[in-house]
Amino acid sequence: MPYELYYWPSIQGRGEFVRLALEEAGANYVDVARTPKGMAAMMRMMDSAEHPPFAPPFLKDGDLIIGQVAVILLHLGQHHNIAPKSEAGRLWTHQIQLTIADLVTEAHDTHHPLGPNLYYEDQKQEAARRATDFRKDRIPKFLDWFETILARNPSGDRHLVGASVTYADLSLFQVVEGLSYAFPRAMKRALKDAPRVATLHDAVAKRPRIKAYLESDRRIPFNEEGIFRHYPEFDG
Amino acid sequence: MPYELYYWPSIQGRGEFVRLALEEAGANYVDVARTPKGMAAMMRMMDSAEHPPFAPPFLKDGDLIIGQVAVILLHLGQHHNIAPKSEAGRLWTHQIQLTIADLVTEAHDTHHPLGPNLYYEDQKQEAARRATDFRKDRIPKFLDWFETILARNPSGDRHLVGASVTYADLSLFQVVEGLSYAFPRAMKRALKDAPRVATLHDAVAKRPRIKAYLESDRRIPFNEEGIFRHYPEFDG
Repeated sequence: MPYELYYWPSIQGRGEFVRLALEEAGANYVDVARTPKGMAAMMRMMDSAEHPPFAPPFLKDGDLIIGQVAVILLHLGQHHNIAPKSEAGRLWTHQIQLTIADLVTEAHDTHHPLGPNLYYEDQKQEAARRATDFRKDRIPKFLDWFETILARNPSGDRHLVGASVTYADLSLFQVVEGLSYAFPRAMKRALKDAPRVATLHDAVAKRPRIKAYLESDRRIPFNEEGIFRHYPEFDG
Repeated sequence: MPYELYYWPSIQGRGEFVRLALEEAGANYVDVARTPKGMAAMMRMMDSAEHPPFAPPFLKDGDLIIGQVAVILLHLGQHHNIAPKSEAGRLWTHQIQLTIADLVTEAHDTHHPLGPNLYYEDQKQEAARRATDFRKDRIPKFLDWFETILARNPSGDRHLVGASVTYADLSLFQVVEGLSYAFPRAMKRALKDAPRVATLHDAVAKRPRIKAYLESDRRIPFNEEGIFRHYPEFDG
């Protein structure tokens, strides 16, 4: 039975971290909300499931319905070859994933500093202030952490954990891709100080299954409805 | 060997979710940064560990150093009687915990909408706008979700998962406690529409180990340096 992924059909958003993991795993899955009547099915499930997710994305695996990106990846990592087998390795990979999730939330907050209910247009000025701080201070701080843990990986600096790809590597690729879309000039500068992160990003993009995915129409282009939005006035 | 918890010594903050789990488990632990030279030890560990946490809190369990509250709780749940044993139950508990973490981040953002680097005093006006939205829309939305999953728990509505206490129950207690400190009037109203959440909160406070902890000086009082801050002008 294929996995069923439920997520907003017109953005990469948080669902993209799950899509990348499913693609790298070569897993059989349906991106339900992109099929006819899929959106209705998604809303129904959120209403009536015994374990209703607070928000998309969520994954249906047989009888299990799993929400929260990091939990979905923890689960996929148990069943596919995209996470370490050891307890210590699993916890470390998950810890990195949750730190990536924090960065994603901060990236989202650059265009919604006053909260998710106001339109971007109604909080533009505040967004400009938050984006400046994010670009100047937070992006370098996070990239420096990723660079440090890559450098300290005893199995080599080509992966965040161990000697092969994990879902954390895929997620770091996606964050670098998204931030480079949103803040192209700032990221170009920031990546010069994080060469291992840049190398990892490029290596993930070339993995055969990821490359095929990125070139397919399953990959939704970035746009200004998603998490990573390109507002040229915020870049610097 | 006792667990070593590393967290800022003068606030409940995110560390409190870990402290409550350790207390309920009856685990032997040292709150390192509250001991002499503890802060220096914490900073050293963040600098030099092979797996450096991005930020406190983190837990040292023998050779393991684990950051991110939800990962620490996942680990403690494996080794103490505060999480279900089944895979499905473990994932669901973890999913609830990550949703609580999202609520905690939003609570923090009410006083720091423009980012963590500006002082609250420099973003007071923006904070007032964000707090209004949080109080009117986000608190009820999250409480409604907790109420729903309590009502749908096939083992009864006294716990979020299964028929006994989990770290998710302890964390929900802490969030209700914190929000009631920060927004006493708004929470009093909101809890009327979430009676199961209110009952769970009160039941956790009466658990013998939690009660003893809350009455001890190990429990740091809420204050305006932590996540949950009482600014009377934000309540309504």
